[in-house]
Amino acid sequence: MYIAVMGYGTVGSGVVEVFTKNHDSIVKRSSQSELDLKYILDIRDFPDDPNADKFIKDFNIILNDDDVKIVVETMGGLHPAFEFVSSCLKAGKSVVSSNKELVATKGYELLSLAEQNNVNFLFEASVGGGVPIIRPITQCLAANEIDEIAGILNGTTNFILTKMIEESMSFDDALKLAQENGYAEKDPTADIEGFDACRKICILASLCFGRHVYPDDIHTEGITHITLADVEYVNSYNAVIKLLGRAKRLSEDKIVAMVSPCIVKSFSQLGNVHDVFNAILVRGDAIGDVVFYGKGAGKLPTASAVVADVIDCAKHAKRKKIFGWDDSEPDYVSDYTQMETELYIRATADDKEKAFEDIAETFGEITVLYRRNAPANEFAFITELDKECVLTEKLNSIKSITPCSVIRVTDY
Amino acid sequence: MYIAVMGYGTVGSGVVEVFTKNHDSIVKRSSQSELDLKYILDIRDFPDDPNADKFIKDFNIILNDDDVKIVVETMGGLHPAFEFVSSCLKAGKSVVSSNKELVATKGYELLSLAEQNNVNFLFEASVGGGVPIIRPITQCLAANEIDEIAGILNGTTNFILTKMIEESMSFDDALKLAQENGYAEKDPTADIEGFDACRKICILASLCFGRHVYPDDIHTEGITHITLADVEYVNSYNAVIKLLGRAKRLSEDKIVAMVSPCIVKSFSQLGNVHDVFNAILVRGDAIGDVVFYGKGAGKLPTASAVVADVIDCAKHAKRKKIFGWDDSEPDYVSDYTQMETELYIRATADDKEKAFEDIAETFGEITVLYRRNAPANEFAFITELDKECVLTEKLNSIKSITPCSVIRVTDY
Repeated sequence: MYIAVMGYGTVGSGVVEVFTKNHDSIVKRSSQSELDLKYILDIRDFPDDPNADKFIKDFNIILNDDDVKIVVETMGGLHPAFEFVSSCLKAGKSVVSSNKELVATKGYELLSLAEQNNVNFLFEASVGGGVPIIRPITQCLAANEIDEIAGILNGTTNFILTKMIEESMSFDDALKLAQENGYAEKDPTADIEGFDACRKICILASLCFGRHVYPDDIHTEGITHITLADVEYVNSYNAVIKLLGRAKRLSEDKIVAMVSPCIVKSFSQLGNVHDVFNAILVRGDAIGDVVFYGKGAGKLPTASAVVADVIDCAKHAKRKKIFGWDDSEPDYVSDYTQMETELYIRATADDKEKAFEDIAETFGEITVLYRRNAPANEFAFITELDKECVLTEKLNSIKSITPCSVIRVTDY
Repeated sequence: MYIAVMGYGTVGSGVVEVFTKNHDSIVKRSSQSELDLKYILDIRDFPDDPNADKFIKDFNIILNDDDVKIVVETMGGLHPAFEFVSSCLKAGKSVVSSNKELVATKGYELLSLAEQNNVNFLFEASVGGGVPIIRPITQCLAANEIDEIAGILNGTTNFILTKMIEESMSFDDALKLAQENGYAEKDPTADIEGFDACRKICILASLCFGRHVYPDDIHTEGITHITLADVEYVNSYNAVIKLLGRAKRLSEDKIVAMVSPCIVKSFSQLGNVHDVFNAILVRGDAIGDVVFYGKGAGKLPTASAVVADVIDCAKHAKRKKIFGWDDSEPDYVSDYTQMETELYIRATADDKEKAFEDIAETFGEITVLYRRNAPANEFAFITELDKECVLTEKLNSIKSITPCSVIRVTDY
């Protein structure tokens, strides 16, 4: 049996490296007598590569080669990845993808295609890099009704927030350091605006709750507005700010999902995740909280997840794995402002005494936070639990204060 | 398709509860048109149970009923569990077990029997309770060579150590509290002497490294000799004492494994695990460190792991899952004292000045630890890295000090 790899970037070349290095045990674990790499598709030339003879530029060579039963898609982006993957599935080839944009946007369509053609479409590497999460959710937690899922899904932003929290680095300096270390791209928008985390929580929510959740359907906030002032106030609360992707089941046919900075207890299983690491918390009715932790990105961790999927495809060569979800429905994803939450609010006021009177009158009981050397007119507090829309309306009704920052508080 | 449950204790009754409560989605996920509970085997009577009509006392009814394709063994203990499970496998029934003693002692034998009879023998619940670990190791990490595995595998001892660390409770008081809370049995030996953790690390090591590791082959220490003095000294080192099961690959055909209290950094992924929670760290060549965290015991978490295995057996009814390991070989498990480690040593000396001169001469550089209100003749330090046997010999050669406590230091 042969495999082909499409896209020889960081992940693709890592796949070839892991596949070659651990080849013997991979073949053994795949229950095949042979499992070899036949083609690498890339538009670029790699004349000095040890696999130089396997490079091709024409996708049709893979498509028309019946010996290629498993195709790895590590090209990234929607096009032509979507067209290539669709064609492979229709041609009866199983596909393994690390492409979160593809899965988050076209997952339902591709899973349906895979089902129709009795092949597999697997994408463990698309969420959490090397952290096993897709398979544990589908299999190990099969006996649970999952109520909620929440995760630190983007290593770049977690690195930036860690530097802000632990070294009081400004957002801009931390971003620059992340770029210098190769953790952030030159254009860091997808990471720092939360789009990357958004795609991942869409995939997880689709899997946990059974209907496709599209990136456009969910509220997404990044971390660009987080300041050191917020980090310090939150620290006095024994908590930290983390960018979380979250999804929660409200009823049989309603969920809520979002990506935003959240306040998390410092020494909880999510609060204790530092640097570029990822962690995903799954809350099930029987199992309680389970957390999966590991490197969410990087060449070899991501590649190892891809290769594990390849092994699984080879093992299930003659039998489709049962795996999939339904399409979305109107209003399946509810308005996130209807969710109950506590809010952290940082604000300024010319007349602080009057401001606190108004706050007490509007919000009732609050928890006041502190930071060193705060400007005289600044303060921060945490509200009681209520629907977010109610809290926001209350906040807007207080004319004596100018809000600077609002962050959701979680119970993680 | 029918299932039978043998043993209606905490886990067995939990299995029936989860199976009944989430029955519709369980049937759907098992890809069967029907999946029902036919028998519950227990020597006791449960006249008021909702499933009262399913109770039987004669194992042969299950054995001889060809409609029963999956048997759940939640009896615990070696006998008659081993005989019952063997008979079921030979009769062509798949078996799901939560019985760590059975798997740790007879795993190779039972997996071979399963293979010979083309059925499955699954035991996700035997390690880490509800935490998914067996399946992620076999599948998600299939592309990795696993170098090392380490875990907090026993909730009772972790609860006791947490109380000692966070509330300065004595070992005896913490044990009593654990018993009052139902976390420890009246006879707590299996937990506090490390036997329970030993069985679990045997199962994990067998799975990770491919040969059966028997409980008798590995060095096992409990936590009964840990004192508050040790807890306090270690705290000054920003670390905590945890009971760890560990196994490490030394070469293709050699491993080392043990259970003992270990010193772990406070805010690491293992150090940050509190109360009755479990966590398992897997170190792979491609993936780096991955950690799985959750409730390691308890009725519903454990039951949910059992039911997930039942679903898997049903899905693979006509096809065995590839899963197993070879038998052990002489000297496969190496002498643990040949492992390199740092050691924490607490000791007393009548002449402390002389003692520190001797220590410096024998050990070279050391790190001295502190605690409040230590007796004048007491001290504690951490050695540099060396083979444990070398360090022990050095320690024994110093005549001017009386060692009170020695604990291994890890890099987790």
